[in-house]
Amino acid sequence: MNHPSSIRICEVGLRDGLQNEAAILTTDQKVTIVRALVDAGFKVIEVGSFMHPVKVPQMANTDDVVKAIGEIPGVELRALIPNKRGVDRAIACGCKKVKLNVSASRMHNIKNLNRTPEESVAGFKDACDAAREAGIAISGSISMPFASPWEGRTPVSDVDSIIEAYMNVGITEISLSDASGMAVPYQVNELCAHVREKYPQCTWWLHFHNTRGLAIGNILAAMDAGMTQFDSSFGGLGGCPFVPGAAGNISTEDVLHLCEEEGIETGIDIKKVIELSGTLPAMLGHGLDSYILRAGRNKDLIAAKSEK
Amino acid sequence: MNHPSSIRICEVGLRDGLQNEAAILTTDQKVTIVRALVDAGFKVIEVGSFMHPVKVPQMANTDDVVKAIGEIPGVELRALIPNKRGVDRAIACGCKKVKLNVSASRMHNIKNLNRTPEESVAGFKDACDAAREAGIAISGSISMPFASPWEGRTPVSDVDSIIEAYMNVGITEISLSDASGMAVPYQVNELCAHVREKYPQCTWWLHFHNTRGLAIGNILAAMDAGMTQFDSSFGGLGGCPFVPGAAGNISTEDVLHLCEEEGIETGIDIKKVIELSGTLPAMLGHGLDSYILRAGRNKDLIAAKSEK
Repeated sequence: MNHPSSIRICEVGLRDGLQNEAAILTTDQKVTIVRALVDAGFKVIEVGSFMHPVKVPQMANTDDVVKAIGEIPGVELRALIPNKRGVDRAIACGCKKVKLNVSASRMHNIKNLNRTPEESVAGFKDACDAAREAGIAISGSISMPFASPWEGRTPVSDVDSIIEAYMNVGITEISLSDASGMAVPYQVNELCAHVREKYPQCTWWLHFHNTRGLAIGNILAAMDAGMTQFDSSFGGLGGCPFVPGAAGNISTEDVLHLCEEEGIETGIDIKKVIELSGTLPAMLGHGLDSYILRAGRNKDLIAAKSEK
Repeated sequence: MNHPSSIRICEVGLRDGLQNEAAILTTDQKVTIVRALVDAGFKVIEVGSFMHPVKVPQMANTDDVVKAIGEIPGVELRALIPNKRGVDRAIACGCKKVKLNVSASRMHNIKNLNRTPEESVAGFKDACDAAREAGIAISGSISMPFASPWEGRTPVSDVDSIIEAYMNVGITEISLSDASGMAVPYQVNELCAHVREKYPQCTWWLHFHNTRGLAIGNILAAMDAGMTQFDSSFGGLGGCPFVPGAAGNISTEDVLHLCEEEGIETGIDIKKVIELSGTLPAMLGHGLDSYILRAGRNKDLIAAKSEK
């Protein structure tokens, strides 16, 4: 098993986590969280999305959040966007990094949008052009690159052709996002090795949900294939669009604890993240899927025993 | 990542799971569960323990359970024992497989028993002799071979000397049991590779708790090192002796789902296990830490979508 010396974590709780919550956080609450995340050491934070405010009301104040924070040197604040309108909003509020998304489930994409995933990506060209012209970095994500509820396992050739479509519009930073929580470790290992070898000009992010308890296994499998950039969500915030009540994104503190114990550098202070995640139940009105919030770190247990 | 073609699972919910429950199941309830497990395909089942009935009242009826079931061809019904008295009870009720246990935490063992783990194991000789004379198979388990709340990481040399003590009393089937839920994947991978190489005459079981969300990662890491025998607990029953309220043993159906998706043979019908685990909340009066009970299998989701 390949053991990386360091990995990079993007905190996505403010976007993928909160968009699944009934409670809508105020701009002030979100700004406070972003500042706490920066203080904990995060260099990449997904602060929200520029989707239609009626469709995703939890994200309607993303523009205000970005404006309130302003630029922080060395920290990338990224926002998910649906298309060029998202770039326009990014320009207006001063957001310097946006991320597009398409589903690798052909049936999903065709049913919803009447076009193939590759056609969707080709349609992103105007967004890419506008972003580049405005000096905004742009990346792309692929939902369900491992499996989908409609097709089961996603054919690797389908993932390849979406990656190539992204490269055709100039995007080489790509997230593989297991939004349905159906990815499994050996498959993750194989697909990661495949894309890294086939597209060496690309950089990769992996985004796992813990729907079926396999997110940490999938991260290990991706690290074994050389991947070093992962999304996670503080407190394990998030959910599953297909299974109400299922666990959400992998918890940031659970990933950080793995790294702490294995000597994998993240540059992030796990204690500060635990403290921040600990404020969420009161804010959101429910418990969380976070093992470390529940059980504490190994080091906490050892410290408690040594005090006795 | 080494991908085994098949693994063997020992269901330990009736022992390590139930011993952490407030509810005490009757002999009839346990016998019904054992029969359901056998029907689902399990070939190794830990049915209980022969500990002192006052200390572990949940296991006091283990003798009656074993008697009621009798022998089932091709199925090993094993019980945990503390010492020779456990062998005597096994003889009396017809149990054909017993398992001893020692803690790899030297401080834990010395504090509790005033002797080193190796001295404890040497003291098991009379139990081993009695078992062999009675035609009862005997194995040994080592708690906290990865880390303990007292010492942190367990030195590999400590694990070696316990293994050698077990071999000295004729035991070559050994469980490495992460009872404190502190094991982490790369460490598991290294220790498993080490013991397999150093003690090729031994067979191994790995027993992981999901206290800090790493049990599936640890199983993957052990499989990568060539291990193929794992304990798990239906519904994720169990707990942590050091952290009240923490998650328990890794859930059997979660392991089976991983195997189902990755083409790893187990010989066990996951649907029957899910059905059985689904009866536990009513029986025990609380919810369970089982992702698959909560979210369903990948195949269930695909089937639901294809029906629409």
